[in-house]
Order: sequence, then C-alpha cells, then structure tokens
Amino acid sequence: MINSMDIDHWMDEVESNIAALTAHPYGGTPVGDVLDWATASGGKRIRPRLLLISAMFGDRCGEQRERLTLLAAMVEVTHLASLIHDDIVDEAPYRRDRQSVQAKFGKHAAVYAGDFLMARIQYFQAKEKLSESGMVLSGAIEQMCAGEIGQSMCRWREDVTMQEYLCNIRGKTTALFEAACRIGAMEGGCDGAVIDKLDQFGACLGEMFQLRDDLMDFTADTSCAGKETHKDFRDGIYTMPVLLAMRDPEAKERLIPIMRVNRDQELSGEQIREMERIVQECGGVEATRREIRRHAERCAQILGELPGTAASAALYEILKQLQSE
Amino acid sequence: MINSMDIDHWMDEVESNIAALTAHPYGGTPVGDVLDWATASGGKRIRPRLLLISAMFGDRCGEQRERLTLLAAMVEVTHLASLIHDDIVDEAPYRRDRQSVQAKFGKHAAVYAGDFLMARIQYFQAKEKLSESGMVLSGAIEQMCAGEIGQSMCRWREDVTMQEYLCNIRGKTTALFEAACRIGAMEGGCDGAVIDKLDQFGACLGEMFQLRDDLMDFTADTSCAGKETHKDFRDGIYTMPVLLAMRDPEAKERLIPIMRVNRDQELSGEQIREMERIVQECGGVEATRREIRRHAERCAQILGELPGTAASAALYEILKQLQSE
Repeated sequence: MINSMDIDHWMDEVESNIAALTAHPYGGTPVGDVLDWATASGGKRIRPRLLLISAMFGDRCGEQRERLTLLAAMVEVTHLASLIHDDIVDEAPYRRDRQSVQAKFGKHAAVYAGDFLMARIQYFQAKEKLSESGMVLSGAIEQMCAGEIGQSMCRWREDVTMQEYLCNIRGKTTALFEAACRIGAMEGGCDGAVIDKLDQFGACLGEMFQLRDDLMDFTADTSCAGKETHKDFRDGIYTMPVLLAMRDPEAKERLIPIMRVNRDQELSGEQIREMERIVQECGGVEATRREIRRHAERCAQILGELPGTAASAALYEILKQLQSE
Repeated sequence: MINSMDIDHWMDEVESNIAALTAHPYGGTPVGDVLDWATASGGKRIRPRLLLISAMFGDRCGEQRERLTLLAAMVEVTHLASLIHDDIVDEAPYRRDRQSVQAKFGKHAAVYAGDFLMARIQYFQAKEKLSESGMVLSGAIEQMCAGEIGQSMCRWREDVTMQEYLCNIRGKTTALFEAACRIGAMEGGCDGAVIDKLDQFGACLGEMFQLRDDLMDFTADTSCAGKETHKDFRDGIYTMPVLLAMRDPEAKERLIPIMRVNRDQELSGEQIREMERIVQECGGVEATRREIRRHAERCAQILGELPGTAASAALYEILKQLQSE
C-alpha cells in the first residue's frame, strides 16, 4: 500500500521530469533567458499530485511509476504554459512574487514561451507513445481554450448568465483537474467505475478551486495573493459572487449602471467599494461561500464512495487544505 | 509513378483532414464563431504539398496515403495556428484579405484560438499514434517558437547581426518547411540519404521563402500583399536588405540615427523613404535578390541530386513558382 511519504518521493521525480520537459538547447542566449524565466516559477503542484494519488487506487501503479511521474509533469507544464498565456491576456505584472514573462520580456516572447512549452509536451507525448493519456490531456487543453475564449466573449456583458459562467470555468479550470485524475486512474490500472469516480472528484474539486479563486479576488486584500482585489470585475469578468447577487432584482438594478461605467472607463475606488457593498449586502459573497462548501461536501461524498485506502486519505488531505486556505 | 494530377487529388484529402482537425463541438456559440473564423482562412498550402511530394520519393507512399494526408493537414494547421499568434504580436488588422482573429475577436480569444488548434494537433497525434513524425513536428514547433522569441529579443537593436537574423528565420520559418519534407520522406519510406536530401531541400526553400517575404515587405506596394510596406522596419525588425546595406560603413552611419528615432517614436513617411533610399543605394535590396537567387540555385542543385521522378519535377514546379511570384 502507498502512503503519503511515497507521494512525496514520487513528487521529487515529477520535479525532475518537469526539469526534463522544460529543458532546451538555448542556454546562455536571450532565447534561453526567456525560457528559463518562463519555467522557473514553482507552484503548489496540486494537479500532478492529484494524478499520482488517483493512480494509487489502481493495481498497476507501482510498475507504471516512470510513466505516471512523466504524465504528472506534463499536466503541470500544461498548467504552467496556460498561466503564461493568461498573464498576457490579463496584462499581469506578477506571477508568484516575480515578474510575469510578459512583463519582463514582452507579450511577443510570452506567447511563444507558452507555445514552446506546449510543443515540449507534444514532443514527450510522441516520444513516449502516450496515446490514450495524450488524448485525454489534449482534449482537456481544447476545453481549457474553449473556456478561456468563452470567458473573453462574455467580457463586459451585464447579462452574462450563471450557465455561461459555469461553462467557462468548467473549461478553463475544471477540465485539467478532471484530466489529471482520469489519466492517473487510467494509467494506474483502476477499473472503469473507479476511473469515473475519480474523474468526478477531479471535476468537483476543480470547480471548487475556481470558485475559491473567484471569491478570493473579491475578498483578499492587495498584499496577499499578489494581485489587486476585484481584478476580475475591473476586467469585465463577472464571477459567481456578482452573478448570485444579481439574482436580487434590486441589486441588479444598482449593479448594472456600475457595469456600464466599467465598460467605458476605469472605475474609481468609490465605485468599486459601492459594487462590493451591493454584492455583500445581497448575499453574493455568502452564497458563493455556501457553493464552495457544497462542492467540498460533494467531493467528500465521492471520496466516501471510493475504497478507503491511503490514496483516499491523501485526497481528503488535499480537499481539507483547499478548504482551510 | 505519381504525377501532379495525383497530388491535386491527395490535396483534396488534405483539405478534408484540415476540416476534421479544425472541427469542434462549439457550433452556434460565440466560442464556435471564434474557432470558425480562426480556421476559415485558406492559403497556398505549400507546406502540406511539400510533405506529400517528398513522400512520393519513397516506396511506401501509396499505402500510407491516409496517414500522409493527415500529417500534411497537421503541418498546415500548425502553420495556421502560428499565423494566429503572429497576428497578435504584430497587431495585424488583416490576414489574407479578411480581419485577423485578434482584430475581430481580441487578443485574448486569438491566443486561445491558436492554442486550441495546437491542442487539436496534439490530439490527432495521440489518436493516430504518430510517434516518429510527431517528434519531428513538435521539434519543429519548438524551433519556430525559439525563432520568434529570438526575433523579439533582437527587436529595435541597431547592432543585430546577420547570424542572429539567420538563426531567427531558420527557426521561425525554415524549421516547418524542413519538417514537412522530412516527415513526408520518412513516412513515404525513403532511404536515409533521400530523407536527408529532402530535408536539406526543405530547409533551403524555407529560408528562400522567408527572404522573399522580407524583401516583399521592402518593395511591395501597400495595395498588394495586404500589408503596409516596411512593416518590419517600423516594428524594429531589421531584415536582410537592411543588414546587408549596413555592411557599408556609410550606410550604417546614416541608418543608425533613423533606427534610434524608430525606437522612440513612429517614423514619418519621409524618414521611411530616406531609410529605403539608403538601403537601395547601398545595394541591400539587390544583394538580397542575389541571396534569393543563390538559394534557388542551391535548391535546384539538391533536386538534381535526387532521383529524377515526377516527384522531383513537382518540387521544381514549386521552386519555379516561388521564384516568379
């Protein structure tokens, strides 16, 4: 049986594989400087961890170690590449306490640094003949792109629906969590029912993760999370707290004029605080917290339906940690 | 033996495969509108044509028809995705007489439309278990990205060297031409020596193609090619005509002040004409034309070293066409 100590050892191998995946022959050149910067940022590595733990539910996990730690690295590098492209679009100055690629080297370099990482994943997929898992991973990337495009098409729209919002976050965030669990379960040798359950767990956890992120943008202060509060709202991306508040006709009536100003010009601090007050008063924040709790309960329920192994305990651990942060 | 009629039939299959590769389940939604626009543009299809003709030098070409027409489509879609990302970086309003994706739907949507196409290629690579060719293709994409990053790092630099310029264009343009020929030759069943020759042909033709493109930016009038003249220079990208002119110390002395102004502010029409005059007078344009002819001769020489089949005649045809345009 595998325990959490094992996971940490396996994660060391994932780190080595991330280094191999992001290796390039341009050391000591300006191109190399860009690629090094693009790949140096750390992160919580939650997606590769989910992949490995999911694999531990299966009986082929041990023998597939090399393949699994490579796939876990591929999932993380996919995430890394997507962050580089997100930062271009968001014009983000920072990423994890250091300058973003786009801020340091320009958007041009950042577009192609992200593309370079995607090509590296494609290369390893070909080299290691990862057919089934490659299809799941690339399918997830397609969904991520569709989610991001969907979000950009909904931007500034005061009539964006909850259904559209959910559809977008399911693409941009959930799909890769789901794929991580599915790939791990498949390659670890789980049976079909367990694969589907882990897939559901990944999807539910991913959605919860994004809701937390959207809520943090509402409630965090500027010093933490390294980004200004209400960045989403300022960018015309209306997330769950706003959408839930707008179910109240009075809140809607007060929010729409602010959204219209937002579209045409930068909102003042007072206007942002007014928006925040309306969303708070109409229970948008509290209702989002409830949604997150509901997702956590659903995750726990799915875990309860899986065999109660050390792997299941490790997934509980991740769930708890996300709830406490 | 295969003739040019066959190639046209095969190209019809390539078109069907391009349609399959760019298919998506988002029809009738805003996401679908973006993806449809991103994939509707035509083009000369020179890269897939090179792949198919290269395959025709081998003895497995006929039996590999399905695989070859799919790979040809993958190469073309790779090119398509790279154009979508190029247009973001160049802020290009048009692409082939219609609005570019970035102009019509914004940079956000364009970043992810390009990524979506790359994910589709990755998906088909996994589905069809294209290992060897997948490695060549993804390796070429890595080189394309490095070339583009290299170009962006050289931007505005008055001291950019011919070596840096060549290194960048070899990545951004040559690599995919080369990969198209190599993949075709490999999958068509050519022997090692023929594969290497076709690879060399692709590389030489690709470099010639980019030199032509850079020259056209210098000499074309605005009405043709759908772009303003001297876009590269205005963008701080100094190409072969400029670099060759700068070998003349007097031209260098006159060009550097214009480059310095260029970096800080938009050049006036008079300044652009002055730059053009200097480059012309010092023979930069004529020397670039000579370089292109030298490449064409080298391409013809490589073709002379290949078996004189219908396939070789078809490559001559492509070479002639590029020279006459």
